[in-house]
Amino acid sequence: MKKILAMISFCAALSPACAQEALWSGHGNEVSPVIEADGRVTFVLKAPDAHSVKVFGDCIGVAPVDLAKDENGVWTYTTPEAVPSEMYLYKFVVDGVPVIDPLNSYINRDIANNTSLLIVPGDPGDDYLTQDVPHGTISKVWYHSPGYGMDRRMSVYTPAGYFESDERYPVLYLLHGAGGDEDAWCENGRAVQILDNLIATGRAKPMIVVMPNGNVGTQAAPGYTSEGLIRPTVVMASLSDDTYVQSFPEIIEFIDKNYRTNATREGRAIAGLSMGGGHSFKISALYPEMFDYVGLFSAAVGDPASNADMAAKVKAQLFGKDAPYYYIAIGDKDFLYEGNSAYRKWLDNEKLPYVYEESEGGHIWRNWRQYLRTFGSRIFK
Amino acid sequence: MKKILAMISFCAALSPACAQEALWSGHGNEVSPVIEADGRVTFVLKAPDAHSVKVFGDCIGVAPVDLAKDENGVWTYTTPEAVPSEMYLYKFVVDGVPVIDPLNSYINRDIANNTSLLIVPGDPGDDYLTQDVPHGTISKVWYHSPGYGMDRRMSVYTPAGYFESDERYPVLYLLHGAGGDEDAWCENGRAVQILDNLIATGRAKPMIVVMPNGNVGTQAAPGYTSEGLIRPTVVMASLSDDTYVQSFPEIIEFIDKNYRTNATREGRAIAGLSMGGGHSFKISALYPEMFDYVGLFSAAVGDPASNADMAAKVKAQLFGKDAPYYYIAIGDKDFLYEGNSAYRKWLDNEKLPYVYEESEGGHIWRNWRQYLRTFGSRIFK
Repeated sequence: MKKILAMISFCAALSPACAQEALWSGHGNEVSPVIEADGRVTFVLKAPDAHSVKVFGDCIGVAPVDLAKDENGVWTYTTPEAVPSEMYLYKFVVDGVPVIDPLNSYINRDIANNTSLLIVPGDPGDDYLTQDVPHGTISKVWYHSPGYGMDRRMSVYTPAGYFESDERYPVLYLLHGAGGDEDAWCENGRAVQILDNLIATGRAKPMIVVMPNGNVGTQAAPGYTSEGLIRPTVVMASLSDDTYVQSFPEIIEFIDKNYRTNATREGRAIAGLSMGGGHSFKISALYPEMFDYVGLFSAAVGDPASNADMAAKVKAQLFGKDAPYYYIAIGDKDFLYEGNSAYRKWLDNEKLPYVYEESEGGHIWRNWRQYLRTFGSRIFK
Repeated sequence: MKKILAMISFCAALSPACAQEALWSGHGNEVSPVIEADGRVTFVLKAPDAHSVKVFGDCIGVAPVDLAKDENGVWTYTTPEAVPSEMYLYKFVVDGVPVIDPLNSYINRDIANNTSLLIVPGDPGDDYLTQDVPHGTISKVWYHSPGYGMDRRMSVYTPAGYFESDERYPVLYLLHGAGGDEDAWCENGRAVQILDNLIATGRAKPMIVVMPNGNVGTQAAPGYTSEGLIRPTVVMASLSDDTYVQSFPEIIEFIDKNYRTNATREGRAIAGLSMGGGHSFKISALYPEMFDYVGLFSAAVGDPASNADMAAKVKAQLFGKDAPYYYIAIGDKDFLYEGNSAYRKWLDNEKLPYVYEESEGGHIWRNWRQYLRTFGSRIFK
């Protein structure tokens, strides 16, 4: 018996594929990407027969850059400057074909698009990496939606200590943007790592985080429906179908029934990015008794003058009795900047209190992860 | 407001990247792979500047095959015959570089190796796809291991209906092979889909499935430890460190404490593939009071004559009082075939009852998924 397991060990050491599927892993001795001692990042691809290798992504700049080939057919590119701590996504282009880095096992899916993942440690990168701290549980949960008349999938995070305690926890409902799904905040948003790290360091209160699927009439992320492994498409954002917004209490009901929640207004927050920010705006206005904390991250909001009914709800109901902590954040180059300005102007005119944060850049996950860190650190306190 | 959301819709319809990260998705109008009406499969890659495009994988054959280029720079290959229903993994080779299919969003990770995923519907493929049935919950759970002195990650499946009922459920402990981790049975093994489909169609009893990490001194799958996004390596299988096997009751204790389990011998099964089969053999022998069902899938077992102590335990303890349902399965070309034959010969000589299933092929997931379907349908009945 010892001999047999020793043989597996030997075999597995030679080739990872040996003990499992017999597929060539494509890995040589090269490593990519490499964070150099001086903070620059080197991308590496072994491609002796390729004529052109480029790399592009949000750590590179606007245009793809060329890698240089050495005598062994190994292509490299090192960034000219140290790359600041952040989470980045990139791809190679090999003779015109955009491809995942074959040497990097970590992939991020956003809608139909897979990209290679790089996280540079530091601040904020450390919050996006798994640290040696107690970890919460992330679950992919199905609930029955009477509003849609279908079963729907959501991601639920319960904090470290949930199993061991009898405590009741506050709940943050965290909503994705157009084209995203119930996995988006876990993938691009690194919500599990952020919450683990915020809670472990005392920056945030232990909380449950619920990430539903906010797409109209959609059961689940691509591949998790009976449509099969179809090519994902962007589900159109729509205000003509308010089923999700109006039926949101069914999600809260499911969570309050099945998790140890603090099922009060003080124990609930709602936040979302882009379309999910628009959802958070509407849901908090429609159900003002539900949420004590509202976060609008690069939200799809505008001048409420165009929607008198909603404006009245916000003013009379949401802020009328007991104003929530109302957090608005957006990048200075965000294409929704104008709408947010109009909304803030209306809030100012109406003397409704809110907290505003403006960051650099456009409609990007780098900002939304930062807003989650900030908003997550301020709620339930 | 309506205008703003309409704008997001319009923008998102043009480009999935627009509403989120501004990364080129690399998708044209092409679709790949395509299951043709006659059951053949076509692989497609747009690569006008490439000189050579091949595809390889377990649906292709032993060697990579060439794709042919048309006047638009689109390369295609259609299999000569219909591809039988199964789950397959494949990659392209573009000018010598092995790459994921950029048109296929579905990726399977096995150790450090990412490959494109194709599931051909039918039998058994339908069981590996999400169907329109009630779905269980899959959770990534951390537990504290006193045996290892560290927190460790596992996958836990609870069946559809778990939330709504007060019922107690039997538990299958399902162990991975060398190089795998707590995600392996969910990825290559499609355990969530298999269990959902078996249970929904009455082929299996509703059960909890627990998939721990069986690697020596390892906390979690690559990327989920404080080591960061390091390049995954195969953790050596070892019989010199029996910590996992000896400390296995701590996992059962955690599960019985935190889930509504049928915490009896009749309510527990253990099964595993390769190294995990070896673990299942040893754990069931060491703790004979624990399991009423044992599954050895292509297991790392041999002639117990080389381990008299373990042989005595199997004979006297595991089979001595109340023989478990003992299921042994292996492929006829598996490199562990000889060891399994020796073990079966010993069981025959000792007149210890077991069920044996031999399938075609080697040490491959195709067999292990099939064994899970079979074993999963027979236990707790």
